[in-house]
Amino acid sequence: MRNTILIHCPDQSGIISAITGFIHNKGGNVVYLDQHVDEELGVFFMRLESEFSKNAIVFSKFKEEFELKLAIPYEMQWSIHPGNLKPRMAIFVSKYNHCLYDLLSRYKSGELEVDIPFILSNHEDTKHIAEQFEIPFYFIPVTKESKGEAEMKQLELLKSHKTDFIVLARYMQIISSKIIDHFPNKIINIHHSFLPAFAGAKPYHAAFARGVKIIGATSHYVTEALDAGPIIEQDVTMVSHSHRVKDFIAKGRDLEKIVLSRAVQLHVNRKTMVYNNKTVIFS
Amino acid sequence: MRNTILIHCPDQSGIISAITGFIHNKGGNVVYLDQHVDEELGVFFMRLESEFSKNAIVFSKFKEEFELKLAIPYEMQWSIHPGNLKPRMAIFVSKYNHCLYDLLSRYKSGELEVDIPFILSNHEDTKHIAEQFEIPFYFIPVTKESKGEAEMKQLELLKSHKTDFIVLARYMQIISSKIIDHFPNKIINIHHSFLPAFAGAKPYHAAFARGVKIIGATSHYVTEALDAGPIIEQDVTMVSHSHRVKDFIAKGRDLEKIVLSRAVQLHVNRKTMVYNNKTVIFS
Amino acid sequence: MRNTILIHCPDQSGIISAITGFIHNKGGNVVYLDQHVDEELGVFFMRLESEFSKNAIVFSKFKEEFELKLAIPYEMQWSIHPGNLKPRMAIFVSKYNHCLYDLLSRYKSGELEVDIPFILSNHEDTKHIAEQFEIPFYFIPVTKESKGEAEMKQLELLKSHKTDFIVLARYMQIISSKIIDHFPNKIINIHHSFLPAFAGAKPYHAAFARGVKIIGATSHYVTEALDAGPIIEQDVTMVSHSHRVKDFIAKGRDLEKIVLSRAVQLHVNRKTMVYNNKTVIFS
Amino acid sequence: MRNTILIHCPDQSGIISAITGFIHNKGGNVVYLDQHVDEELGVFFMRLESEFSKNAIVFSKFKEEFELKLAIPYEMQWSIHPGNLKPRMAIFVSKYNHCLYDLLSRYKSGELEVDIPFILSNHEDTKHIAEQFEIPFYFIPVTKESKGEAEMKQLELLKSHKTDFIVLARYMQIISSKIIDHFPNKIINIHHSFLPAFAGAKPYHAAFARGVKIIGATSHYVTEALDAGPIIEQDVTMVSHSHRVKDFIAKGRDLEKIVLSRAVQLHVNRKTMVYNNKTVIFS
Repeated sequence: MRNTILIHCPDQSGIISAITGFIHNKGGNVVYLDQHVDEELGVFFMRLESEFSKNAIVFSKFKEEFELKLAIPYEMQWSIHPGNLKPRMAIFVSKYNHCLYDLLSRYKSGELEVDIPFILSNHEDTKHIAEQFEIPFYFIPVTKESKGEAEMKQLELLKSHKTDFIVLARYMQIISSKIIDHFPNKIINIHHSFLPAFAGAKPYHAAFARGVKIIGATSHYVTEALDAGPIIEQDVTMVSHSHRVKDFIAKGRDLEKIVLSRAVQLHVNRKTMVYNNKTVIFS
Repeated sequence: MRNTILIHCPDQSGIISAITGFIHNKGGNVVYLDQHVDEELGVFFMRLESEFSKNAIVFSKFKEEFELKLAIPYEMQWSIHPGNLKPRMAIFVSKYNHCLYDLLSRYKSGELEVDIPFILSNHEDTKHIAEQFEIPFYFIPVTKESKGEAEMKQLELLKSHKTDFIVLARYMQIISSKIIDHFPNKIINIHHSFLPAFAGAKPYHAAFARGVKIIGATSHYVTEALDAGPIIEQDVTMVSHSHRVKDFIAKGRDLEKIVLSRAVQLHVNRKTMVYNNKTVIFS
Repeated sequence: MRNTILIHCPDQSGIISAITGFIHNKGGNVVYLDQHVDEELGVFFMRLESEFSKNAIVFSKFKEEFELKLAIPYEMQWSIHPGNLKPRMAIFVSKYNHCLYDLLSRYKSGELEVDIPFILSNHEDTKHIAEQFEIPFYFIPVTKESKGEAEMKQLELLKSHKTDFIVLARYMQIISSKIIDHFPNKIINIHHSFLPAFAGAKPYHAAFARGVKIIGATSHYVTEALDAGPIIEQDVTMVSHSHRVKDFIAKGRDLEKIVLSRAVQLHVNRKTMVYNNKTVIFS
Repeated sequence: MRNTILIHCPDQSGIISAITGFIHNKGGNVVYLDQHVDEELGVFFMRLESEFSKNAIVFSKFKEEFELKLAIPYEMQWSIHPGNLKPRMAIFVSKYNHCLYDLLSRYKSGELEVDIPFILSNHEDTKHIAEQFEIPFYFIPVTKESKGEAEMKQLELLKSHKTDFIVLARYMQIISSKIIDHFPNKIINIHHSFLPAFAGAKPYHAAFARGVKIIGATSHYVTEALDAGPIIEQDVTMVSHSHRVKDFIAKGRDLEKIVLSRAVQLHVNRKTMVYNNKTVIFS
């Protein structure tokens, strides 16, 4: 069985050998190890995949000992993820469907190893797509007045479906702390600019007005500060004076879906860690 | 002889055939034509290279007729540039020398077809490079108090050397309107970020603090609004959590010199037009 | 009404003014013009969009006069395409479905302005996708023995559905001249390498074996020479030693679908011309 | 003091903890560790930077013990590189000077931490550049007849100047095994195509003839098979039908110098390992 372990803790001498020695002694083989030290902050990060023969570890006992012998003495924040568990990914979407189509196609063809308990929208435009891909669809409209109530319904849905994380596939409503607090660093948004440029509404219009020669897309974890959460992935494409706003939007669609799906894959494969409003992205 | 003609005017029907017909009637052959219409503003832009047998045109007469038959009736802003004239390019630089080295290497190897009347700096660090490439070097220090006086000296130098345009090759002083007014859309700066993100001082530090996954460089014409002039060229490169500020700076150096030299080449080849604080870049 | 005119002919003086003058005299307004001269071969290419008020031209008469006054004297190959016609695009696919999903999603969301008369496959794996998107699906298996017969069936389908062009969305059979002759420069393939590197079968395996640091995808018109037709679009992405063949394949999927869809869009928008086994791609 | 250790050996369980435990026991702190397992070949690669307080290790004793306790039992190929040693880099060049200028500029500004004992050329065109940068220049012409003799002289120069590695900065002569055998994986070439496409002479002409939409550059270690050695770094740039061969060459120059300098930096920083005619490139 393969496990992925994620660790961060204060940087200190001997830590790698302590961890890899522990795994080795438990009969595990380290098949992948990536580590990062933030030298300014003195923080150590590690991602480690290890293979155990089936009988070699009793899972709960392994966790207990890891906690005692490593996590406590080294002051670690850590988590372990068995390789055979598919995370449950809810999708929130408004009217634009390109990211939704892209995620669902990857899901159907087995490229994206998740379960999708439901799709939620504040509009009914994408209902037929949910049906086409045979995924439950919930329509929860949001107005200024109904926002609080709508979020209560969203939370209930997320809980009753045992959702692990949320993808905002061009969901055009601001997510409030009511939801964020339950899914810290577990809500992935796609913003259609190379942040921090053009945060907020209508980034393609703003990019056009400024006359930039590149446009971009940014996928990030949602925090309470709008478009200011930890960046997971970014990419850009060239534009020219001959492109109008509608051309920016068309070129941007491809960027958005590629950047979002890369970010989702990184999250699903436990290759992201968040610290100090930034991400460490393991390769 | 080859000429380049640049035109902008209100968009109107029949304009392309009027211009190309005029050239044809004067014995010229259009070897390159690129045109752009800003449909929102209703403005027409054209760049046209035409070849004339040597005797075919008397230059001043051509200009006179063009003015009468085309420029006035169509309300054109236009200019004509004989292909055999090398523009005179002054370089301003402070302490960082990578852009300077890059420009001078291109100049020496014939890649960049300009004359370089002089290099000016507010420091003496690059003096030996100017000497190495045998180009006059002027040291004009700038302090808060001496800024006005320094600019007077700069202007004199620029005039006495018949300077056509100025390249700020990492010149770390703000250029005031005193200089800009004499060189409108003729001062090219390189800023070490993908503008409009991280305008102002220390963009690599700001990019690091924000945790971006791409860094960039932007070359633009200098206007009175800091880092807000018309963008000529931009490019980016990927970074990761493993890069520190000094790595951003190192990666950025290559971006800066490539982006700046592309912008300078575009300017030298008359492939840029400025309108509404944006550029039209011909191919 | 907007028309697109494509022209190539021997390069000669005065041609642009002749064409634009003709359009102007017919009451048309040139809204876009792009031209290219292959100076070695002495060939002139032009793409021209012009707007006519509805009554201004009688279409057949316009064509007749263009032929007489321009096409014959200038020895032009030319074609005119009214802006309101959707081309009919057949899709051939084998087992991989990512390009198929991508094309169909773009089609359904209105991004790709074509009609799709049918999807054809030599396997049944993608039948459910055709059904999901409500497009007729034909299953025509191909074996060494049945190849001739299969192609006859394909041709019949293509004809009876009035197909304008064919997209090979990862169709893993070689297209023979029997089909190509009926669709010259009208069959678009996606090959999963940056051609001419790694032509033929299993390019990702070959790229892995060679240890390249970039992989690519190439969309081209199909000719009888395998993977050697005129290239429409290419793009690449970075890989490293840490990627295995399956990672190349996964990264390649995104490249393939983006590159193929860009090529299809260029073809649909009449922005491609073929000459001398190369393409001219208008912007 | 900081050391870099490079290791490859058969993959086996417990190896990371053995190595990191050894370093820890010797009083060292692992500040960077990157590892790679080629699962098909069963080979383990590691790059490890460790910091020792000055008195902590006697260098020769460290090596002896490492050999006994790790290298022999684990069948390692390994090397250790003290951080304060500048490698000695000879430059071979023919007539094109853009890569030479670029390397020398980086050297002079402290960006490239090497010593440059000499520049060697089969032409005299770049002699003035060597003088300009105050580096010894040797002119060794090469003809079919004199090739053997020329190589003897080259070898003598390389030895007498205690050269560590060689950069072929657009040196247009084939390097024979006479030289390669003395500098295995220590000769870095820049080839002006995205290999394996367009190996051999005149790649830009071949790329133009094929009508590609991207051109590239490849830096690789020189082996006896022409342009077929382990690839260190590649990059590409977009081209179009409007670019002629001379435009490919101009765009290529920037690619070549950037790609070559990146490869040289990787080599200088001991971030490359060669195995099975491929490279492992540490981050």
